[in-house]
Amino acid sequence: MTTPAPAGQRIVATYRFPPGVDPAREAEILAVGQTLGSHDARFPGREAALAACRAEVLEVQVCEHEGRARISFPAANTEHDLGTLLTMVFGKYSLAGPARLVDLDLPADLGTRPRFGIAGLRARLGVEGRALMMAIFKPALGLSAEDHATLLKTVADTELDLIKDDEILGDLDGAPTLARWRACRGVVEAIRDRRGREFLYAVNVTGRADTLLARARTLVQEGANALLLNVLVYGYPMLEALAADPAIGVPIIAHPAFAGALALAPDHGLDYALVLGRLMRRGGADIVLHPARFGSLPFDAGDEQRVIRALRGEDHDWPRVFPGPSAGIKPHIVPELLKDYGPDTVINAGSGVFDHPEGPRAALAAFFAALASP
Amino acid sequence: MTTPAPAGQRIVATYRFPPGVDPAREAEILAVGQTLGSHDARFPGREAALAACRAEVLEVQVCEHEGRARISFPAANTEHDLGTLLTMVFGKYSLAGPARLVDLDLPADLGTRPRFGIAGLRARLGVEGRALMMAIFKPALGLSAEDHATLLKTVADTELDLIKDDEILGDLDGAPTLARWRACRGVVEAIRDRRGREFLYAVNVTGRADTLLARARTLVQEGANALLLNVLVYGYPMLEALAADPAIGVPIIAHPAFAGALALAPDHGLDYALVLGRLMRRGGADIVLHPARFGSLPFDAGDEQRVIRALRGEDHDWPRVFPGPSAGIKPHIVPELLKDYGPDTVINAGSGVFDHPEGPRAALAAFFAALASP
Repeated sequence: MTTPAPAGQRIVATYRFPPGVDPAREAEILAVGQTLGSHDARFPGREAALAACRAEVLEVQVCEHEGRARISFPAANTEHDLGTLLTMVFGKYSLAGPARLVDLDLPADLGTRPRFGIAGLRARLGVEGRALMMAIFKPALGLSAEDHATLLKTVADTELDLIKDDEILGDLDGAPTLARWRACRGVVEAIRDRRGREFLYAVNVTGRADTLLARARTLVQEGANALLLNVLVYGYPMLEALAADPAIGVPIIAHPAFAGALALAPDHGLDYALVLGRLMRRGGADIVLHPARFGSLPFDAGDEQRVIRALRGEDHDWPRVFPGPSAGIKPHIVPELLKDYGPDTVINAGSGVFDHPEGPRAALAAFFAALASP
Repeated sequence: MTTPAPAGQRIVATYRFPPGVDPAREAEILAVGQTLGSHDARFPGREAALAACRAEVLEVQVCEHEGRARISFPAANTEHDLGTLLTMVFGKYSLAGPARLVDLDLPADLGTRPRFGIAGLRARLGVEGRALMMAIFKPALGLSAEDHATLLKTVADTELDLIKDDEILGDLDGAPTLARWRACRGVVEAIRDRRGREFLYAVNVTGRADTLLARARTLVQEGANALLLNVLVYGYPMLEALAADPAIGVPIIAHPAFAGALALAPDHGLDYALVLGRLMRRGGADIVLHPARFGSLPFDAGDEQRVIRALRGEDHDWPRVFPGPSAGIKPHIVPELLKDYGPDTVINAGSGVFDHPEGPRAALAAFFAALASP
């Protein structure tokens, strides 16, 4: 089955099929259908160009409970970005029947490099040797811009590293995006000045694609120092745009909203390690939020390990980025969590901070005590 | 269970759960978790504002093989666009366990109106009373820009209404996007001039979000008269941006690439009638391509009917848009297909035209004969 890969950069995609699907047949459909799109293509004089575009079936495996196929695609079929990558490896084919994209080996230059990553974000925040602590404004909706500033003041004398909007909070009449930043800017800068190191507020950017890009640039012009993006709703190509834009240039926090629609079904879609791991890192996210098996959303320990590895391991020439375990994170689970995650982690808590029975300052004191525990 | 909906526009989302999931419990998680995000939210003086943001559980149904819940969300929690809509109704919750979003009742103004729809596209093309005929350049990759023009010339003396790029074809070195349009423009305009009615070439727009928007505007400045977008890869917010942009203003054809990753699993994700139906129409697409049960991709007859209804029925104050049955469409299946679809349909064929044993002109003659059959 193995055929030598032609010259040139390659993209190797691995697919998993449930029992009853013939992986060898599917592999051939993928190799032609996701490249030339035509089994009988004839175009005089272009035979070599056509052959160069065709994918190669590298390997097919069948066992009792699953089948697998590895397909090698020419990277030259893409724009070396995530949009054309996804269209090629799982676009039309996603409609063809039960199959799951479980791995992607990518050329070294495919995607958009995170501007900060772990090293850059630590340098910007002036924090080494411990996990970062991030809070989420709660309640998510129903507060005015001034209410956000009031909430922020309650944690202004802590060592909190970052705060972010809830991902549901868009540009709403009650608390417009720019008004939130304007109301909070003075507090953010006062925190920075008091302790002599940066404090980041990741403002959620939303809207039609053109609106979102314009809003992100305006926020940064007005001093905003981090952005939050619901990557699976707005698309990896939007993440790449924010990460690449020299007029933006601030850390990008990727939220996993909608990721379950792509990754939670067992035999369809894409593995979490791609959706929240490799593709986020290759798209330019600096921190990637995701469920944690210690939290309130179901998350398999294997998925969690693979997501962390995709964000911080592998891909050794690409900036390492922070995993951000989220949802139901409370102080008492932090020691156990850190045993798995180690210090290159962003602890992200919303209700765990702002719904704490003794208030947010007490909550953060408990979180920082847990961070310091051996 | 029924509670009266508060004043103001509402969004009603219907979820389906597999056996073993308690729909009443999930409905409460949705109503709070996808709005306030906090069960214990306290914020003195803001109680009314907070209560106004909370969703209401309208109905919960349990039967042997499934559960259902209908939740009414305040439209004011969104920007009246698809990005904040999806984040609210299925963002974080998509990660929470097996659940499928199966219906959305939307306020009359939520989304971006298609600029053309069926009526506008018929007027632009000068075709009434029959289905439209669209071809796809094949092979999908490996041809130069000039090869595209050569292929287009082979069908220049037919009544073909539209042609489009294959969705895989991005801005590649061998046939850059703008070069394809420049090479084909003369042929496109010659077809128009010969027959005195428009001929549309939907150029595939790709790239990082900023690149894609700039490329779309440049293409239109240079005379391009239709665009193709892989909506599920680039995001509904990108579709809305293209449809709303006065500097673009050409028909938008939505491709279903990647839709299976969201819709094909039985108990997760979203129904095809949303992914390829309502959300595409509310996002501003003028033609929506999708599998057909007569074609080469698996597509359930019920899904097909619901997609067609979502595109052309319901939503009576919103422009009706064309369904475009695709993949494996050959002349001999057209009569049966039209019995189901009726004339407000775009017949979309790639291999069926350019791989026809007697050549593309003979293929189109067969397609038009089938279109004219009673």
